[in-house]
Order: sequence, then C-alpha cells, then structure tokens
Amino acid sequence: MKIAILPGDGIGPEIMAQAVKVLNVLGEQFEMETADVGGAGYAAHGHPLPPATLALAKSADAVLFGAVGDFKYDTLERSLRPEQAILGLRRELALFANLRPAILYPELAGASTLKPEVVSGLDILIIRELTGDIYFGKPRGVRECPDGPFKGEREGFDTMRYAETEIRRIAHVAFQAAQKRSKRVTSVDKANVLETFQFWRDIVTDVHKEYPDIELDHMYVDNAAMQLVRAPKKFDVMVTGNMFGDILSDCAAMLTGSIGMLPSASLDASNKGLYEPSHGSAPDIAGKGIANPLATILSAAMMLRFSLNKVEQADRIENAVKKVLAQGLRTADIFEAGTTKVGTEEMGNAVVKSL
Amino acid sequence: MKIAILPGDGIGPEIMAQAVKVLNVLGEQFEMETADVGGAGYAAHGHPLPPATLALAKSADAVLFGAVGDFKYDTLERSLRPEQAILGLRRELALFANLRPAILYPELAGASTLKPEVVSGLDILIIRELTGDIYFGKPRGVRECPDGPFKGEREGFDTMRYAETEIRRIAHVAFQAAQKRSKRVTSVDKANVLETFQFWRDIVTDVHKEYPDIELDHMYVDNAAMQLVRAPKKFDVMVTGNMFGDILSDCAAMLTGSIGMLPSASLDASNKGLYEPSHGSAPDIAGKGIANPLATILSAAMMLRFSLNKVEQADRIENAVKKVLAQGLRTADIFEAGTTKVGTEEMGNAVVKSL
Ligand SMILES: CC(C)[C@H](C(=O)O)[C@@H](O)C(=O)O
Ligand SMILES: CC(C)[C@H](C(=O)O)[C@@H](O)C(=O)O
Repeated sequence: MKIAILPGDGIGPEIMAQAVKVLNVLGEQFEMETADVGGAGYAAHGHPLPPATLALAKSADAVLFGAVGDFKYDTLERSLRPEQAILGLRRELALFANLRPAILYPELAGASTLKPEVVSGLDILIIRELTGDIYFGKPRGVRECPDGPFKGEREGFDTMRYAETEIRRIAHVAFQAAQKRSKRVTSVDKANVLETFQFWRDIVTDVHKEYPDIELDHMYVDNAAMQLVRAPKKFDVMVTGNMFGDILSDCAAMLTGSIGMLPSASLDASNKGLYEPSHGSAPDIAGKGIANPLATILSAAMMLRFSLNKVEQADRIENAVKKVLAQGLRTADIFEAGTTKVGTEEMGNAVVKSL
Repeated sequence: MKIAILPGDGIGPEIMAQAVKVLNVLGEQFEMETADVGGAGYAAHGHPLPPATLALAKSADAVLFGAVGDFKYDTLERSLRPEQAILGLRRELALFANLRPAILYPELAGASTLKPEVVSGLDILIIRELTGDIYFGKPRGVRECPDGPFKGEREGFDTMRYAETEIRRIAHVAFQAAQKRSKRVTSVDKANVLETFQFWRDIVTDVHKEYPDIELDHMYVDNAAMQLVRAPKKFDVMVTGNMFGDILSDCAAMLTGSIGMLPSASLDASNKGLYEPSHGSAPDIAGKGIANPLATILSAAMMLRFSLNKVEQADRIENAVKKVLAQGLRTADIFEAGTTKVGTEEMGNAVVKSL
C-alpha cells in the first residue's frame, strides 16, 4: 500500500515527521513517498501543486497531508498561493466528502473557552461537501456589472451551484455515518434565501426516505452557528455544503479549544482519501519544535481506518493518544497547570512508546 | 415625525407594545402608524409585505419592526413566506447597512455559554452589508446543469456579486463607526477562494486610504468564526458581506447568551432605517406574556439615535434599561437565581418607570 506524504509548509514538516514515525512502528508494509506541496511546492517547482506531486497523490492509496501557507507567499498571485494546492487536490482527486470530527477529550475540557457543562463530552461529526458549491462554480471573476443600479461599473462575482448527484452522494455519506452513531442528522442550509439550498433541502429530504432509521432535521446556517455556541452537544452528524461547512466546521473545532487534536478526512467515492489535521500551518511557531503533532497522528489513524482498511491499527493509534493524554503530557497549545509540557518530538515519541 | 410600527408574528405584537409604550412617554410628538407584516400580512392581505405596508414604510421617517415567522406558514411557497417581508423591505428601502451590536451587559455575564473571562465586557459592532451578495444576485434558480461532469441533470444555483459602489459605501460606514469607537476594523472575506471577496478586499483596502486614523485588518470568514469563539473581545468593528454577516452576527449575538437584549439597525444612504430586535419571532412562547421586550425597546432607542436625531431620548431609554437590569428584573430568557423574574409587560412598565 502506497501513502503519499505531503508535509507542506510551516509546522507541516515537523508534525508530519511524528506521524510517519508512528506509521513506521506499526509493523505494516507501507510504501511512503514524500513530495513538496503548497509554498514548498512553489519554492522548489514554481507551483503549489507541482505535476509530480499531483501524480504521486493520484497513484497512492491515500494521502497524508500536513498543512500549507506562510506569510512569505501572501503577495503571490492567487493561482500560485499555497492554498491552491489543497483546492487542486480536492478537485483532481474528486474528494467530495470531508469528515471533520469535533471531539472534546475529557482531559482537555479546560482548554475550551466554553463552560465545561456546555462542551464536556462533545462529539460531533461535521460532514462538509468539498467539491461543489461556490468554491468551483463558474462563471466567476471581475466584470462590468451587466444590469441593475450599478450597471457599467466593476463587480466581483461567483456562482454557487449544486447538482442533484452531488447532493445525493454527500447525503448518503451523512446518513450512513449516522447509522454508526446516534442516528441523527442535521442538514444545514439557507433554503429561505438560496435556490441552491432549497434544492439541497429537497434532495436531502428525498434521500432520507432510504434511511427510515435516521432522524433528519433541517436548520438554517445562521441558526446552526448560534446553536453550536448555545448547545453544541445537541448535534450528532451535521451535513452541509462546502462554504457553510468551511465556516461551521472551524467554529465547531474551536468549541473544543484544542484544534491541535482534531484530524480530518476528505474522501472520494471509493474511500480513497486525503487526511490532514484541522489546524493550519502556524508559520509563527514553525521550526520551534513546539507544535502539537497529535492531530496529524490521529489523521494517520483515520487514514488507516477509512482508506487502508486497517481498523485495528487505527484503534491502536487512537488508544495510544488517549494514553499519553492520560499520562498528562501536553504540548504548549493544550498545556494547563498540573500537566507536563512536552515538545513536538517528545509527544511523537510518547505515542510510539504507548503503542 | 412618522414611525411605521410593524409588529409581525409570534412574540412580535407583545414586545412591540412595550416599545410603543416607552416611545409614548418620552413626551415627543411621534405619529405612529401600525401595519401587518410577515405571516400577519399574509393572513390579512395574502402577502407577507402587503402594498399598504410597504407604502407606509416608504413614507415613514423610520420603521420599527417586531419579528416575523411562524410554523403555520412553513408550507407556503417561498415567495409568500413571512421572511420575504424583511427581504423585500431591505431591497425596496435600500437598507444596505445593518448594524448589529453584540454587547454583554455586566449583569448578564452568567447567561453566556462562554467562560466569564472570555466574554465579560464584550462590545463588538458587526456591520453587515444587506442588499447585495448572494441574497439578491441574478441569475438564480433550478436549471439543467450546463456543463461539467453533471451536465444535463438538475442543479440549483445562485449568483454572488458585489459592485464597487456597494463595497465602498459599506466600508465608509464601517470606518466611520470605528472612528467613534476603538478605531479598529476587521474586514471579513474569503478572498482566498472567491472572486467577489478578493474584489471586496481590494476595494476595502482602497477606501481605507481615506481613514489613516483607523487600523484595518482582513480575516477569512472561517478564521473569523473561530476567533469569535476563541477571543471575541479582540474584535471592535467587523464589516462583512450579507451572507457571512448573517452567520457571524448570529454567532456573535449568541456569545452574549442574551440575544433577547440585542437591537439592530438597517440603514439607507440617508440614515433612514428599519430597527428590529436581533432575535426571532419565537412562536413557541407567543401569547404567554413571557418574552423579553428589551431588544425591541433598545431598537427604538437606536431609531431615535440614528434616524430621528433624538440622541438624548435614546440615552434616556438605554439608561432606563440598564437601571431595570441593575434592579435585578429579568425575563425568563435571562433569569438567574437571585434575580426577580418578570413578564413582558412588567418589564416594559419597569422601563417606563425608570425613564
Ligand atoms: C485554505 C482554504 C482554501 C480552505 C477552504 O476554504 O476550504 C481551508 O479553509 C479549509 O477549510 O480547508
Ligand atoms: C429571515 C432571513 C431571510 C434573514 C436573513 O438571512 O437575512 C435573517 O436570518 C436575518 O438575519 O435577518
């Protein structure tokens, strides 16, 4: 089995090194091949998603991704900026289903900015559609405004869109995920304003007929943002479009206060996937050896579970992570008085030891 | 001076009655005229925004709006549903600037789901553009997908758009609001993905040149949702588009835990405005006499301040509200042990008495 290792920028290489170390001691035969991506791709090959990197990602059984982005690439034109790599990989590999768990580990309840009773035991799964919506819709650009009160002046514009098949397949992913959990799905839309999301609501309602065991409710996105803050534990599986999912999944992750712990998976129709931590490249702390590698290590576990069919090994890693938390080891981002502060490498080593 | 009073649905009439009572005791000569809107407009005249209601709103110097929406109208076709009234009023009256303060009254710090140290003293002003973006952009609808992998099947679609003038004028509102506050503006966009919001960022940056006294920073919407949860007090004035503003302003309001306290203003180019509480119509508690009228009363104060140029009267109302809170009076939504629970009418009377 071949794994594409794409460390990226900022803290990406440091945290990835720990995940690779963990994979190496599992005793499995993985072929791991590393390539440049993001700012590192641009620096070495003039493009954030160099052709060789894309070819490797396509030929691999799964992709383990670090993080991309750095201040020094902020002035590049948009098509060359690091985040184009992740958008390109999603589109080229047809990774339409983004699974983002927001879990609060009991040991880390204090890290949240929310009151413990509001978030303790939090365990939500946000399923974000990842290849449609306003992210890729055409036409888009800056043009002369064609009509209305601003006719003739410049306007920026984009197209939001979802085809029936796109909505159906992500709805199936959500209902099937809910079958393995508390059997409740909240579909988040803005059907009261947007045609795209009235259509979304209609199709999700239709797919739901195939899942009589699942309870479905629909919620407007503004209300969902409020309810995430008010009573997040009321949610189980939340499914939504690309744009709303971008916002809500980050909001939900931050509710835990420990975004350095949260993995994510982006899957195609046959469960091939790209796995990455939910946090960013944090260029401000890059190279200091203090970044939290656990989200990347847990992303490797998700990869074993969803794409490589090594459920036991995934369990082993997840249990090892729980063990190091129980031992009181903490990187700086989740450190509290009474626990032991460790660096990136020590944390990786502790997970290896606990395996 | 003429005020259009549009109570609407659910708790709308109850809370509006208290605001009208407060306006009546100020000793000013207001001509107040009431009209049906939302579900009530549909029930009485077959349309959520009946022509007479729109004509009244247009002829008035300001509009005081309760809330619209009720379960019983959920099955109507979209163009007849209550929320079309508010969208129609915004468009027809050209109310492009929505000001939504998120303030945590010291007495209500316990109402928040966030830890007191994270939210105590919170005072953010969210400025949401209200007549552009994907809310009104055309074309929109359900069509046959014109190209790509889903060509020929049905797709829902909408158009996001902002013309230069629309961005300029809302940017001016934000910078000028910041001049009366802490002189910091955060413009929220998604310039890394959307052409509309790269254009937005460019124009906001350009308008900023006229305000050298104001500090401007740009933030992606997903990060803004995170930072609102992580460290909301870091924000002062936040300016953003219609769609992102819908989500972020509700999220920010909920941070306070007391959305029943938050007013809002929607202004046109000459400061004529529509004023409404940030909360909804709460049909589940309608008619019970327990709804919190303070957001509507504070909306009346905003109206006096922004549209009717009665700053002293606005101050009087706001101080009266602070006084009743200090006296320990609470409606059910903000009740805590050790305070005195009162109903809608008692709360209104208490404000009148404190004036
Ligand atoms: C970097 C950016 C393009 C990306 C997105 O908006 O999808 C990021 O925010 C994410 O959520 O993975
Ligand atoms: C009712 C709805 C159309 C409206 C909006 O999306 O603008 C509401 O959520 C608001 O924020 O006033």
